[in-house]
Amino acid sequence: LAAEGATVAGSGLATLQYVHEPGVTDLTWGHPDPTLLPVDEVAAAAETMLHEQGWKALTYGFAAGPAVMTEALIAHLPTIGERPPRPDELVVTSGNSSALSMLFSLFSRPGDVVLVEAPTYFLALRIIADHPVTVVGVRTDSEGIIPAALAEAAGRTVANRGHRFVYCVPTHNNPTGATASPARRIALADVAAKHGLTIIEDDVYREVSWHDRPGAGLAPSIWSLCDGGEVVRLGSFSKTLGPGLRVGYLTAPTAMAGSIVDSGVLDSGGGVNHFTACIVGTMIADGSYVRVRDALVASYADRSQALCRGLATGDRLRFASPGGGYFVWAELPGGLSSAEFVGQARAAGVACTDGRVFFPETADSSPHTAPGAHVRLSFSLYPADDLAAAGRTLAAVADRLVVA
Amino acid sequence: LAAEGATVAGSGLATLQYVHEPGVTDLTWGHPDPTLLPVDEVAAAAETMLHEQGWKALTYGFAAGPAVMTEALIAHLPTIGERPPRPDELVVTSGNSSALSMLFSLFSRPGDVVLVEAPTYFLALRIIADHPVTVVGVRTDSEGIIPAALAEAAGRTVANRGHRFVYCVPTHNNPTGATASPARRIALADVAAKHGLTIIEDDVYREVSWHDRPGAGLAPSIWSLCDGGEVVRLGSFSKTLGPGLRVGYLTAPTAMAGSIVDSGVLDSGGGVNHFTACIVGTMIADGSYVRVRDALVASYADRSQALCRGLATGDRLRFASPGGGYFVWAELPGGLSSAEFVGQARAAGVACTDGRVFFPETADSSPHTAPGAHVRLSFSLYPADDLAAAGRTLAAVADRLVVA
Repeated sequence: LAAEGATVAGSGLATLQYVHEPGVTDLTWGHPDPTLLPVDEVAAAAETMLHEQGWKALTYGFAAGPAVMTEALIAHLPTIGERPPRPDELVVTSGNSSALSMLFSLFSRPGDVVLVEAPTYFLALRIIADHPVTVVGVRTDSEGIIPAALAEAAGRTVANRGHRFVYCVPTHNNPTGATASPARRIALADVAAKHGLTIIEDDVYREVSWHDRPGAGLAPSIWSLCDGGEVVRLGSFSKTLGPGLRVGYLTAPTAMAGSIVDSGVLDSGGGVNHFTACIVGTMIADGSYVRVRDALVASYADRSQALCRGLATGDRLRFASPGGGYFVWAELPGGLSSAEFVGQARAAGVACTDGRVFFPETADSSPHTAPGAHVRLSFSLYPADDLAAAGRTLAAVADRLVVA
Repeated sequence: LAAEGATVAGSGLATLQYVHEPGVTDLTWGHPDPTLLPVDEVAAAAETMLHEQGWKALTYGFAAGPAVMTEALIAHLPTIGERPPRPDELVVTSGNSSALSMLFSLFSRPGDVVLVEAPTYFLALRIIADHPVTVVGVRTDSEGIIPAALAEAAGRTVANRGHRFVYCVPTHNNPTGATASPARRIALADVAAKHGLTIIEDDVYREVSWHDRPGAGLAPSIWSLCDGGEVVRLGSFSKTLGPGLRVGYLTAPTAMAGSIVDSGVLDSGGGVNHFTACIVGTMIADGSYVRVRDALVASYADRSQALCRGLATGDRLRFASPGGGYFVWAELPGGLSSAEFVGQARAAGVACTDGRVFFPETADSSPHTAPGAHVRLSFSLYPADDLAAAGRTLAAVADRLVVA
């Protein structure tokens, strides 16, 4: 991995987003371990797909996504605890980042308000910032957004015209790992309906779940629970198959899905990622997707537990062992700044992400989420032994800083 | 082809954008003939690419595009008469439609003005309409936008704040087939520079060229001719390899390319179409792309000539035999409305596109481009014999309508 993150001979060209930092176990990247990526399975699926679809995989695709993908998705979603969408509720996307950007491009107008969890996925904040909207942070607890805080924030922003959105990651949250119960999801949807908010539910980690499993204990999405509500659910294959494929999907109210399908960019270019959607649809339909996903989830469960075992060798860091997702959200000892901890951890050979980057600038603070008190640790990229060692290092750094 | 355009058993699901209309030779689609799509070559390239790149093709890609693609492009562009971009001037895109939408998402602000050719690519008008900008049509002649008309339109819109864009297709224009000379291109760039306009040069048909060839008589792009100017050139593999791959690229001033690479959506999701860009880069590097392109261009040249031979069996339609691109732009006899001609042609079994859809609502009219006087005929989708027959039918319809 090390050599691969470098640019090509200093040319400014590169193959990967990942950049290697020598001598550091870098827990800042929410990237899959290269050894888990299903190269052989994708190669086989590409061959099968091109044999079956032929030229149809190479020409302009249906705007909502190719039938090989949409049919497979409609059959797959109930297996992960989701309500199967009607065809006019489903659109294939090129991943959740792209879908999020597309939603704001098509549906937001200048001055619109986007309510987000504080803390929230920091790169979603960057995507949102590329649109002329106003971000407002909302307080969270161990289940994510607090409904009363959402109502209060909605009330404060009522003077704004146009759409108001709520962006949230209610399942295996990035960065906190929190998962909302069904009751919490319904309460959020009720507040959203009362205040005319559109919920954008980023459900990228639903299938990366090992404690409660989708369809077996894990809460269904807000979209599934609230049939008819103004909820868009974003699903992805980036975390369970490979982010380089750039394939996801969204389920949305019919009117909204229809507006996306009828947008200029899809009318002109056809479905956003026709060829790779044909590959992923083939893998869902022939069962190879679920096999790849299950192996990968088992590995992430091991890695998560290894990191947590390492962290638990000290007694100063507070964290919940995640039931899914890519991240541990660790609370630092009182009085210790995240900046100092991150600096000392890096000096000890472990990079982690300062919790402050996940808070929008305008966020309310709260005891649970006060900026400066947390770090995010990704366990997706390294083998379990490396993660256990990194956890021990971080525990020792926390102990040492508190003692000092 | 016929059966493939239908939805799946009336379910609302489908594979293709194309919709078949029984009994009609449909010259409205700018889609490649299925028999020309390089299924075997793409299958071989996917296999080779996954063998060479392995997991690197499946993880988050470098924001500007993977090195296998960017290195190949930098070597390829001089072979088509283009200035090779520096690495910081080049960004891989998921096709020109997507790139156009992304440019307006990132760089336009409400009230910005977009100056377009009248006539222009009608679906570009739809993409632009999804952004809160104002479209202004500019008069054209046989080389595209008239520089004096551009200056005049720029002068009229000078009160607007923010960016002002010029969107144009100066090479094998859609719909007119017009190609600007080097002198015209430089004159347009000079007007743009004087008035602070950013040119968006949609160069999708550059490599679909059989009269003057790229690098051998065909004018270089405005971007290549005007090093340092505020010009973004959009290049694509949709017309020469397969639109379902959704792979293109743009060359732009360093600051603009840097802003795209640093955008939230690329920071979060990585390169926009990493996997298929790796395939296309592999095909450029190993020569299979150029072989596919050359065979396809030879076929389009035949088809274009077949259509023109058919059209020339009457003497009422005026048209130039195209030197490239996908379209013939036929001028109807004086006094004949395009709506009536389109209706009568359809009744005779040939569908064509009413020239009025290519004119923005606010366009100035001019003798060359007066709305209502033209139809656009695509020769990309059908074999030469069908096109010759369709041309004869259209010629006969024109003769009959004029005589009547």
